[in-house]
Amino acid sequence: MNPVIEQMFRHRSIRKFKEQQLSDRQIRTIVEAAQRASTSNYYQAYSIIGVTDPIIKKEIADLSGHEHVERSGHFFVFCADLLRLIERAESVTRAKLKENLENTEHFLVAVIDAALAAQNASLAAESMGLGICYIGGIRNDMKRVDELLKLPEFVIPLFGLAVGYPDHDPGVKPRLPLEAVYFENIYCHDEAVYTRALENFDETLKKYYAERATNRRHDTWSDQIQRKLIRPVRSEVTEYVQSKGMNKI
Amino acid sequence: MNPVIEQMFRHRSIRKFKEQQLSDRQIRTIVEAAQRASTSNYYQAYSIIGVTDPIIKKEIADLSGHEHVERSGHFFVFCADLLRLIERAESVTRAKLKENLENTEHFLVAVIDAALAAQNASLAAESMGLGICYIGGIRNDMKRVDELLKLPEFVIPLFGLAVGYPDHDPGVKPRLPLEAVYFENIYCHDEAVYTRALENFDETLKKYYAERATNRRHDTWSDQIQRKLIRPVRSEVTEYVQSKGMNKI
Repeated sequence: MNPVIEQMFRHRSIRKFKEQQLSDRQIRTIVEAAQRASTSNYYQAYSIIGVTDPIIKKEIADLSGHEHVERSGHFFVFCADLLRLIERAESVTRAKLKENLENTEHFLVAVIDAALAAQNASLAAESMGLGICYIGGIRNDMKRVDELLKLPEFVIPLFGLAVGYPDHDPGVKPRLPLEAVYFENIYCHDEAVYTRALENFDETLKKYYAERATNRRHDTWSDQIQRKLIRPVRSEVTEYVQSKGMNKI
Repeated sequence: MNPVIEQMFRHRSIRKFKEQQLSDRQIRTIVEAAQRASTSNYYQAYSIIGVTDPIIKKEIADLSGHEHVERSGHFFVFCADLLRLIERAESVTRAKLKENLENTEHFLVAVIDAALAAQNASLAAESMGLGICYIGGIRNDMKRVDELLKLPEFVIPLFGLAVGYPDHDPGVKPRLPLEAVYFENIYCHDEAVYTRALENFDETLKKYYAERATNRRHDTWSDQIQRKLIRPVRSEVTEYVQSKGMNKI
């Protein structure tokens, strides 16, 4: 295993940061690393907003339910951005392009582009000794985040990325057995193996939660997912995304 | 700049591969590296299918329009997968969970999870001296890819990843100026800077296309995007995704 892969295997989300802020140079390197990721059709269909204003940071921390947003060394918001693609078009062409951007395909393109860039940013930050935590919690109120960051049509906030100097040392969390995630040629080619893999993972996780250094609990993977999904979650995302011109048709 | 970031800066898509296949060990390492990426709510809402059957590989190469799919050392298909989340639930609960998974929020969760995993896979492969190319072209006919890989409800193919030993040495492609992608606190805070950045990028790219070693052409970024977007693209993706239970409500 080489150093790049070793670093991936050491990944864990960091939720407590030291007070130290990132330097402009560190921020620039992280964003440039993000930009080096692959991009569909060369569109580069994302924007990244660095939130430094303490009032905006505080409000996003509150609405997402994560105080480490406020205490991070730098907080990025990754946005799907299709607007840039039409920015330089003349008005007649522009109207036509807009129409063609409204479908699920282009929504997918922008979301995937943003996520690939974000994972480069995360690994770049970790390679510099920093810790990271993705903040999907900004989707608790996308409309408010949109207002705070003054996002135009065809630009939506997908998730945050809190980055900073780690102030705790959590363990690496187990992942599903490879047999439950990776298949050859056809999906789930051996159902017995697949089911056993999921059962084993519940057992692995029960043990992990019971024995870890802090925050011990009695739980399994299947149980925690059922608790989360038994109620509707973020139903208003659909309408918000469509109101921005994306994923409409 | 450290070795992880240096590697990101060397990235370019590889479209010609040597005949050598990846070893089982290499495939396993790439998938395990993918699994170490962050995941929303710990859902790990993706599956990866390794396509080794030459008949399936050929058909995917044809429908995506990329012969390097067929000639890759290994071809992965990354799928958004929400099915695993309900696999172990009793039937009454299962029906309820399904309903709650049908919205755009959970579609986003699965697409982002799959993309983060794929970017880890890509960087892991590149760190092993392999080359990669994302194949969005599988979305030319998602329904057919779905049939070939026998995907169940709540599982959709997002993109392929062709991996193999590089048999050419293309240059690194320019990226948008940072000023067109990264903003502080509010979107596009200085429109003059933003517009100038896009104009500069068109100039940079005109020069890049005119001077590169192979496949020279006269083109800019804005022009190529307009040519691509002036016609509707993959309009049937919307219906297919909904037919699988995702992004419906």
